[in-house]
This record gives sequence, structure tokens and C-alpha cells, in this order.
Amino acid sequence: MTVSGSGPSATPTVRDVAEHAGVSPMTVSRTLSGGKNVRAEVQEKVWAAVEELGYHRNENARSIRPGHSSGLIGVAITNLGNPYYGQFALGVEEVASLHGRRIMLGNTGEQLARESQLVSDFIGRQVEGLIVVPTGEGAEHLTPGRLGSVPLVLASRTVEGLDADTVLLDDINGAYEATKALIDGGHTRIGFLGNVLSVSTARRRYEGFVRALHEAGLEPDPALIRRGQQDVAAARRAMEELLGLDDPPTAIFSANNRNTIGALQAIGTRQKDGPAIPAPTLVGFDDVELADMLQVPLIIVSHDPRQLGAQAARMLFDRLDDPEMDESPRLVELPVTVGTLRG
Amino acid sequence: MTVSGSGPSATPTVRDVAEHAGVSPMTVSRTLSGGKNVRAEVQEKVWAAVEELGYHRNENARSIRPGHSSGLIGVAITNLGNPYYGQFALGVEEVASLHGRRIMLGNTGEQLARESQLVSDFIGRQVEGLIVVPTGEGAEHLTPGRLGSVPLVLASRTVEGLDADTVLLDDINGAYEATKALIDGGHTRIGFLGNVLSVSTARRRYEGFVRALHEAGLEPDPALIRRGQQDVAAARRAMEELLGLDDPPTAIFSANNRNTIGALQAIGTRQKDGPAIPAPTLVGFDDVELADMLQVPLIIVSHDPRQLGAQAARMLFDRLDDPEMDESPRLVELPVTVGTLRG
Repeated sequence: MTVSGSGPSATPTVRDVAEHAGVSPMTVSRTLSGGKNVRAEVQEKVWAAVEELGYHRNENARSIRPGHSSGLIGVAITNLGNPYYGQFALGVEEVASLHGRRIMLGNTGEQLARESQLVSDFIGRQVEGLIVVPTGEGAEHLTPGRLGSVPLVLASRTVEGLDADTVLLDDINGAYEATKALIDGGHTRIGFLGNVLSVSTARRRYEGFVRALHEAGLEPDPALIRRGQQDVAAARRAMEELLGLDDPPTAIFSANNRNTIGALQAIGTRQKDGPAIPAPTLVGFDDVELADMLQVPLIIVSHDPRQLGAQAARMLFDRLDDPEMDESPRLVELPVTVGTLRG
Repeated sequence: MTVSGSGPSATPTVRDVAEHAGVSPMTVSRTLSGGKNVRAEVQEKVWAAVEELGYHRNENARSIRPGHSSGLIGVAITNLGNPYYGQFALGVEEVASLHGRRIMLGNTGEQLARESQLVSDFIGRQVEGLIVVPTGEGAEHLTPGRLGSVPLVLASRTVEGLDADTVLLDDINGAYEATKALIDGGHTRIGFLGNVLSVSTARRRYEGFVRALHEAGLEPDPALIRRGQQDVAAARRAMEELLGLDDPPTAIFSANNRNTIGALQAIGTRQKDGPAIPAPTLVGFDDVELADMLQVPLIIVSHDPRQLGAQAARMLFDRLDDPEMDESPRLVELPVTVGTLRG
């Protein structure tokens, strides 16, 4: 591959591409921006030259010229290690590519300081929009004063004191229905495993759990409640504690998939090693791969994280496509499905 | 929060921050770039002003000024929906943050055209380095002529005809040892589930599989080989075909976690609905969450995708930290562990 007129190490410019294709630099520029008013065969010549010279637009330079957009959507998730968020990001990406945008994915690890830094960095890189699964512990870095005109959609969780477009799951009803299924199955000693209450999903799912108990004239038993587990290892330890109680719960509501997997592992170990007591019935919020193959009584509160991501992206593009849109924040709650009791 | 000297909607500049902190713009700039030659209490004043005004550096503008780097590492993975790659990206991110860099994650969906476009886009955004899990079908867009001085590390897979720093798993020995365990267990009719052979991991794992067969005087049986399954649904159908044969295999080697999960689902359905034949023994490359809780004979070829990501990042930073480093490409193979047969 030789490049006429410039050494192999020089970075080719629009002018090089134009010369190589035998067209004007304006034609190259128009072709790269979508090809409006450029004949198909000329566009082909330009693309061949782009390919041959290895030309790259400087996307950063483009994004700081007024009137040019970066083509980037910033997406902040809390835990890259949770398959849930991979599916979520995939849903965002699918809708973003329909709109010709790329996503830039960052991980906050459930830490407010990293979230704040990440959002600031996204803004510094001129993202056109932001989709954030917030830690929920602070709002300051997500206020319009900080984001300027960049639209924001919160996904999966809310932030105390922040009004923004938000897409949530129907956490409260999902947890309510699942707990009700346990009570209808005759359970009265029901344990709870979940995230810290500063996370809105944990709060909302706990609310649904308590509502079902109250409706049946039951009270949540503090001895059976374990909160704050953010990964599988912590969830497993919490479940082992519950199973080790003198009077263990006969059923458990687990508020997310990390807690469900930890609980399943604890049950599995106990069935292998421990005294032969019946495994508690488990209800888990979020799908779990292979859940249907386990020999453990399990109800799943099921939903599609990909749909959640897609919905967040659609809400963002609503605003990007129509900057004159009514400013009032919108709230969408996606339905969940409570599986039937097995085992 | 009021901002003296500028309206609330104006974007604050370095000059605003300097005025607010009572220091020179140069001091602000030095503080933002690491604080060299700026006293600690002055730095604190600057950061307080940055915080109070909601100032963001324009990272893109910075990255196109000569001598300034973007602080970004481009990471291309093939399937965001596979938890394996979430862990992989987490490993890259951990090492990148130790080096003060952020990652920009893109998904190619196993499509060469998207990979090529993504790499070009990363280069256009002035990434400092690239880590790519390649589809493996083309090398052109990854050649030095295209990447310029941006270092590249290939992870998990190689690309035919491309010499670059690469980190792989010990695919061949892992598949060999796992298949040998099946043969030692008395199996002679062993099926194979895997990705298309253009993917180097599939090729290498098939090579290990065949080597173990040959050593035992066996030949791979084309009727028992299913290749090209890239997701769980396709893997499940392929496994159902194998289970439905008049003379089905008594054991299966599955070359990655998508195929293993599909195979497990097919076995599960058959155990529930189908004739009561014994489930084939399954060997799966890659860890699978909850695998240890299933009632199916299963051997896992285990490794840590997070370590793979971390190793790729370390190889990249070796080059970034020492541009004078020997140019010859390095190849690292990470060990895998073959579990013992259960069930």
C-alpha cells in the first residue's frame, strides 16, 4: 500500500483523500458526513481513497467545532461484573446505533466519587447525552448546572432530590407479588437479602416486601433481614448466617441477582455438607442464567435489562431529536413478571 | 450556588476558576495537570473553585493539542451480552485506572465491519492505546499503517496474518486435558460444540480436542461436531440435535460458556420431558455461574477473564510507558485449570 505524495508515516488529511480520489475537499467532507448532494459513484471513489490511505476523521477536533456533535452517548453503570449491566448496555447500544451514535461505557463500582468524576469526564468529552445508573447517594454532579444542555436519563434507580427523566422497573409491585406468593404458600418466617437502602431499587423492593407482609398481618423480623450485600461473596455469607439461625426462615426474598446467586450457593453448600434440613424457598428479583435447572425451590421476578437500556436510550433520543420538548421529567416503569413457585 | 461574574448558564472557563480561587490561570492549569510546583493549600483552593463553579476541562480540546494525551484506552469486545466480557473489561479498567486512564468500551457483535469502524473511530478520538478481542476475520484495519503510533494488544484471540502483542488463554492444552479426562473416564463417542473456526479460540480448542482423540487412537466423528453457535439459543438447538441422534454421544466438549449454557438447557429440558436416557457428561471451557449446583455431570475448564483483561492492559502500558521498547510482538498464554469430573 503506497501513498502518493506523502510518506507512509504521515497522517493523511482530507486534502490527501481529495487528491487521491480526484475530487474537491468539500466533496470528501460531504461524503464523510453522510453523502448529501454527492453522486453514488463519487462517494464510492471517496470511500476507496479513505480506505486506501487509512484516513481517520479526527472525531475530537470535529466535536469541538461549533455545530458539530461528538456522536457519543455517555453510559455509566455501577457494576461491569454483573451480567445484568452487560445486557443493559447492549440495549442502549442497539437504540443508539439506530440513531447513528456510539456509546462510551464507564463503570462506577457503586462509588459516588467515581460516578461524579465519570460524569464530569463525559461532559468534558462533549457527549450528546448521558444515561446513568446512579449510586443514588448524591445529586449535585447530575444537576442541570453541571450538565449544561446535555440531557440525562436515569435508569433502574432514582436519586434523592433530583428530578430527571427516569426509567425504572416496577420494583414495588414485583416484590409485593413475589412476597405474596410466598405468604400464599404458607410461609410466615420470610427473610430478606438486598442492597443498601441508599440504592432506590433496594428501598423500593423492600417497600413491596413489607407491604405484602403487612397485608397478611405480618411484621418484618429484623433478625431475618440482611442488607448491604453488593456482590455474590457477601450475599453468600449473609445467607449462611440466616441458614445458621436456631429458627431459620422458611423462605427468602432476594432483592437482586447478586444476592440470589449468593443465596443459591449457600443453599448448595449446606445441602452437600450441612445437616439435612429442607432448603428454604427462594424468591429472586432479576433473572439468573440456569436458574431453571436448579433443584432448589425458586421463584424469579423476571424482566429484560436489555429493554430497560433500550427504553432509557429512547427517552434520551426523544430529547435530542426535539430540543423544544416539554421540560417536565418523565417517569416510565417497566413491568416485571413473577414466575410460579416450583420445587 | 451563585457564580460571581458569570451567569448560571455560562460554561465556566479556566479564567473564571482562577478568579474565583484568587490565583493565576497558569496555577489552575498546573493544578489540573497534577499539581506540579503548586503548594498543597493553593491546589485545594483551586479544586474548591472547580467544584463550586462546576468547571469541566474540555478533554477533547486538550487531546488535540500537541503533547497532550486523551487519557483514553479503546477496548473492543465481541459480545456485551456475555458476562465473560464484562469481567474482561473490568480487568482492563482496573489496570487502566492505576495508570490514570479511562476505558472506552465498544461492542462489535462478532462483525468485522463493526470492528473496523470502531477501531477507526477510536483512533479518530485519539485513544492512547487499543485492546481488541478480534473477530479474527480481517487484519487490514489493525495494521500499523492504520493505527499509526497507537499501540495494540490483541486479547483472547489472534488474527491471521497480523503480528501484534497478544494475550491468549492456554486453549490447546485446556481442551486437550479436558478431552483426555473424558477419554480416561471411558468415553469414545465425544461430541463437540463450538464457535466458527475463523475465531482462533474455537480453532485452538478444536485442535486440543482432536489431539487428545488422536492420542487415544480415536477420530473426531463429523456427525457429532456442531460449530458456529454464537449464542445460547443456537447452542441449545445444536445440543438438542446431538441428543436426538439414534446413537447420541456419551460425552460433549463445549468450547465456550455460551455453548455450555445452551447444552445444559437442552439436557435440562430432555431430563424433564424426554425419554429417560442418562445425560451425557459435559466438559465446558469457561466458568459458568451456578455450574457447581447443577445435577449434571460437568467438568469446567476454568480461568479468570478479569486476569486476561488485566494482562492485556499491562502489556499495553508496558509500551506506553516505554516507547523505546523492542518492537517484536510478545505472546503471553495464561494457564487454565481443568476441574475434576463430578456427577
